[in-house]
Amino acid sequence: MKEPYRWPENIRAAFCFTIDVDAESPQLWRGRRQTSLSMNELEQRRYGLREGIWNLLETLRRYEVRATCFVPVYEAETRPWLLEALARDNHEIGLHGVLHEVVSELTPDEFARIVEKGVETVVRRTGTKPAGFRSPAWEMTPWAFDVLQKAGLSYDSSLSGHDHPYSLDDTIEIPIQWPIDDAVFFRYSGTGNDRWPPRSTAETVKSWLDVCEGIERHGGAVIPTVHPWLTGRSYRIPLAEALLEHARNTAGLWICTAGELAAYHAASPNLGSFRHSRELPVPSSFMLQGELACLSA
Amino acid sequence: MKEPYRWPENIRAAFCFTIDVDAESPQLWRGRRQTSLSMNELEQRRYGLREGIWNLLETLRRYEVRATCFVPVYEAETRPWLLEALARDNHEIGLHGVLHEVVSELTPDEFARIVEKGVETVVRRTGTKPAGFRSPAWEMTPWAFDVLQKAGLSYDSSLSGHDHPYSLDDTIEIPIQWPIDDAVFFRYSGTGNDRWPPRSTAETVKSWLDVCEGIERHGGAVIPTVHPWLTGRSYRIPLAEALLEHARNTAGLWICTAGELAAYHAASPNLGSFRHSRELPVPSSFMLQGELACLSA
Amino acid sequence: MKEPYRWPENIRAAFCFTIDVDAESPQLWRGRRQTSLSMNELEQRRYGLREGIWNLLETLRRYEVRATCFVPVYEAETRPWLLEALARDNHEIGLHGVLHEVVSELTPDEFARIVEKGVETVVRRTGTKPAGFRSPAWEMTPWAFDVLQKAGLSYDSSLSGHDHPYSLDDTIEIPIQWPIDDAVFFRYSGTGNDRWPPRSTAETVKSWLDVCEGIERHGGAVIPTVHPWLTGRSYRIPLAEALLEHARNTAGLWICTAGELAAYHAASPNLGSFRHSRELPVPSSFMLQGELACLSA
Amino acid sequence: MKEPYRWPENIRAAFCFTIDVDAESPQLWRGRRQTSLSMNELEQRRYGLREGIWNLLETLRRYEVRATCFVPVYEAETRPWLLEALARDNHEIGLHGVLHEVVSELTPDEFARIVEKGVETVVRRTGTKPAGFRSPAWEMTPWAFDVLQKAGLSYDSSLSGHDHPYSLDDTIEIPIQWPIDDAVFFRYSGTGNDRWPPRSTAETVKSWLDVCEGIERHGGAVIPTVHPWLTGRSYRIPLAEALLEHARNTAGLWICTAGELAAYHAASPNLGSFRHSRELPVPSSFMLQGELACLSA
Repeated sequence: MKEPYRWPENIRAAFCFTIDVDAESPQLWRGRRQTSLSMNELEQRRYGLREGIWNLLETLRRYEVRATCFVPVYEAETRPWLLEALARDNHEIGLHGVLHEVVSELTPDEFARIVEKGVETVVRRTGTKPAGFRSPAWEMTPWAFDVLQKAGLSYDSSLSGHDHPYSLDDTIEIPIQWPIDDAVFFRYSGTGNDRWPPRSTAETVKSWLDVCEGIERHGGAVIPTVHPWLTGRSYRIPLAEALLEHARNTAGLWICTAGELAAYHAASPNLGSFRHSRELPVPSSFMLQGELACLSA
Repeated sequence: MKEPYRWPENIRAAFCFTIDVDAESPQLWRGRRQTSLSMNELEQRRYGLREGIWNLLETLRRYEVRATCFVPVYEAETRPWLLEALARDNHEIGLHGVLHEVVSELTPDEFARIVEKGVETVVRRTGTKPAGFRSPAWEMTPWAFDVLQKAGLSYDSSLSGHDHPYSLDDTIEIPIQWPIDDAVFFRYSGTGNDRWPPRSTAETVKSWLDVCEGIERHGGAVIPTVHPWLTGRSYRIPLAEALLEHARNTAGLWICTAGELAAYHAASPNLGSFRHSRELPVPSSFMLQGELACLSA
Repeated sequence: MKEPYRWPENIRAAFCFTIDVDAESPQLWRGRRQTSLSMNELEQRRYGLREGIWNLLETLRRYEVRATCFVPVYEAETRPWLLEALARDNHEIGLHGVLHEVVSELTPDEFARIVEKGVETVVRRTGTKPAGFRSPAWEMTPWAFDVLQKAGLSYDSSLSGHDHPYSLDDTIEIPIQWPIDDAVFFRYSGTGNDRWPPRSTAETVKSWLDVCEGIERHGGAVIPTVHPWLTGRSYRIPLAEALLEHARNTAGLWICTAGELAAYHAASPNLGSFRHSRELPVPSSFMLQGELACLSA
Repeated sequence: MKEPYRWPENIRAAFCFTIDVDAESPQLWRGRRQTSLSMNELEQRRYGLREGIWNLLETLRRYEVRATCFVPVYEAETRPWLLEALARDNHEIGLHGVLHEVVSELTPDEFARIVEKGVETVVRRTGTKPAGFRSPAWEMTPWAFDVLQKAGLSYDSSLSGHDHPYSLDDTIEIPIQWPIDDAVFFRYSGTGNDRWPPRSTAETVKSWLDVCEGIERHGGAVIPTVHPWLTGRSYRIPLAEALLEHARNTAGLWICTAGELAAYHAASPNLGSFRHSRELPVPSSFMLQGELACLSA
């Protein structure tokens, strides 16, 4: 009844390691109307591009895995060595806003300029045009897909409508999963706004490997997300190692970048099968009227 | 001192696997006065009727277990294949509102039309009249039971006043338990309103099996609740498997539907023994006066 | 440097199993100014005096342990069999308000009438005058101790200033501990106000036994708190069993009631050693002035 | 690519056990504009200087480890024996405010007087000038570093920008980590404001040792933080024991005080390598203008 996703021969599932390379930008965007910033949170975040990114890059090199790195312009421009270092190790670079802006809080025009600025920055610093976008906070809007397409991007990686690549109208979606996003488990600002304590690395390793195995068993694509200031922290590197170790030791697993996944999907028989509309349901106020109308009919 | 629940011969406890087949409707109801919806949450929920329900149905077929499925009209009508697919596998179908409306936010008249609409939809699509109702968010009101009875429904499954079927005036209650509701452990919208991170499948399996064993040991009815967009997710199918495996391997356990449980209760000597009033205590403001009056007397 | 608590000969620590026998009253008090109550929460709470208390009493009988039961007047009067059943099994009965009122929200006069009403109810129904009080929500005020004393009560059991009995001016404090209060781990109303999911029984058993062993090792008094609607639930009885099993198997542990602990403290050489004032620090606004004054001096 | 921190010969990492010796002061500061205080929380906190500190001191003596103790003036003055007892065991004493004031809520002038008062108190009571400051709630501001320097203090211990000592302009930072702060896991006031339940000692031991090993493996400095009213509690002493046991059994680990770490950093080749500006990014509102300006250009 459910059509399985069709992979290349001898492949039964895919694995794509992604890094959201944001440091201060989410805090700056969130606090853009405030006069002060938590210095504690800021120093935590800065760790990411002082130590964390090097810990992650070294680990990836050790396992010979290429990651997909979504980098806000702010981080790329304040650390001029950053995009170059990622490109040198052959990692894919995707867009992640200028200042980690939440898309639904922007106008389409503002978002278009932000995407344009991102493309320009990556081309200027690496010579390669980016193919993908990951929405800050993983929040998209239907109109944002049009902006991505006009800018020549081929995929988005922010939603969870399948466990494998799929299409939302003409954009390819490379699906993420909250249970393998490190921010859910490790972010702890200490500012009094936290709603749960940081999870231990060992517990996280266990639960993430369960997710990997579950998706692989069903023939999907495992797409974990890590941050340099969280998983890049010395005592969380074992999470990255466990994932890469698992991927390396799993037969029939295609270790690839998000761009490679998107390109495969675009050229494969899956394209037609897993196509959905990105449109939201009709406004709910209208639905309720419709509902009540149909009830009173 | 405590009267045990009396089961058929050779039976010491019951097991009833229930599925709340809601996808977008709870988000639409909750957001009915808002102009925008989180697309991330929406795509998570849509997974339920793209992939999740098939994962669950395949699992139930493998263990040869019939489930009880509570389906809102919205999902039934936007996926015309849905009720038919559930009926084809011989699962029981119960009501779950039109748009997953919280009963206490409705007038009795609105609720009556919603129940009527639900009955009409199930009859039209499956040819069978539903016997049961599960309240969205498990929140009932005393007057809602009258509505159910007038509509010819025989049971509700939303409350936890016993660990086995019981009666609230003339309605039979098939009791649920929060510690075996998957939404408590797996729902994570990522919208900033979440209060705890998603629990791992493995931890959930462990804690749910403890609940099963505890209820069985005391001669009750184990009634877990899962959702296609949560437990139906590839990496959570092991929870459904663990429950069904457990049920299949437990001697003296009656694997049944909620409707079968309700029919047994209606015809059994338990009916009289476990009868309670559904009425709430007198309004608390009055109680306090009563309290203070009695104190000052 | 730290003086150890002196126990009777051959005793190295104490264990006192306490039950807060509240069902609806905390919800009624909390919702006293609201026009509606969650029926889901109410049915959960009613389970406590339909099934939970019997599960607990049966367990205590099996391990031959006498508990200390703090019962609000509301529950005692709406279930006329309750106090008698507790007394029949020889459990100690203490006060817990009329409607589980939070002491700090009352006037001293209101609190006095509530205590008086509690004493009257217990005497009338059991023939024995209660000796102790446990503050609903474990929140006391300095003036409330005077009320207790005037009413002839000898101990309070609501605070955590030591791991063994101690004195706050002339009242004996039988100390509780949040990490062995079942409400912290098991209460889950489902009303949308919960801040964390219910903890599993197995995890709770492990963490509570650690607390037991820690207190015993330091020569203190282990005083866990359970509720009929929480730990009394069939699948949580293993927590009560684990505690009682542990107590029974621990050499040198005095298994006693809170009243016995208080009486021992009152007659022992510890009375003088562990004496503190119940007075709060001077109002903090004053302290800050004092602080700034001393700084500017 | 990442420069390793250079330790003395035969040393590969450092371990520094720190105690934040606050009892009532954080509650008094937080509640300074309220007319009442939770007596339950207050008694919990008072446990810290009735029992907890002795439990910790005894444990440290057993493992022959010197701790670094950050003590608010309030606790030092209300318990005249306190600083003397810490000094007698040769522990380092650092500053922690007068009333545990959150630095960002003070004016620079107020903070200067608070630091001055702290220095005066420690000198008067122990004869030794303190070298370090730990910011209450671990929240610093750029200007606060100037105040520390003018007062002759050489280090701060409140931020997490590296896993080893580093410099923020002219002040040395001895970095803390939220995942090894006991308040995150053990604080539970019971006042209704708690956002998660207290974690068990055993789980905490496991996750903290993972942090220790992670930092040590990367050649950093392990700097856990405990409080007398939390980890000093009898049943949490096993956490202190596990840390000290681990430190004692780890080859190449330098067990030292924060002051010794700071002195080493000041005199070592690391001083130049790990130097950062303490300045915050330009105000975010300006950044957004800059961003939009650059976008529209």
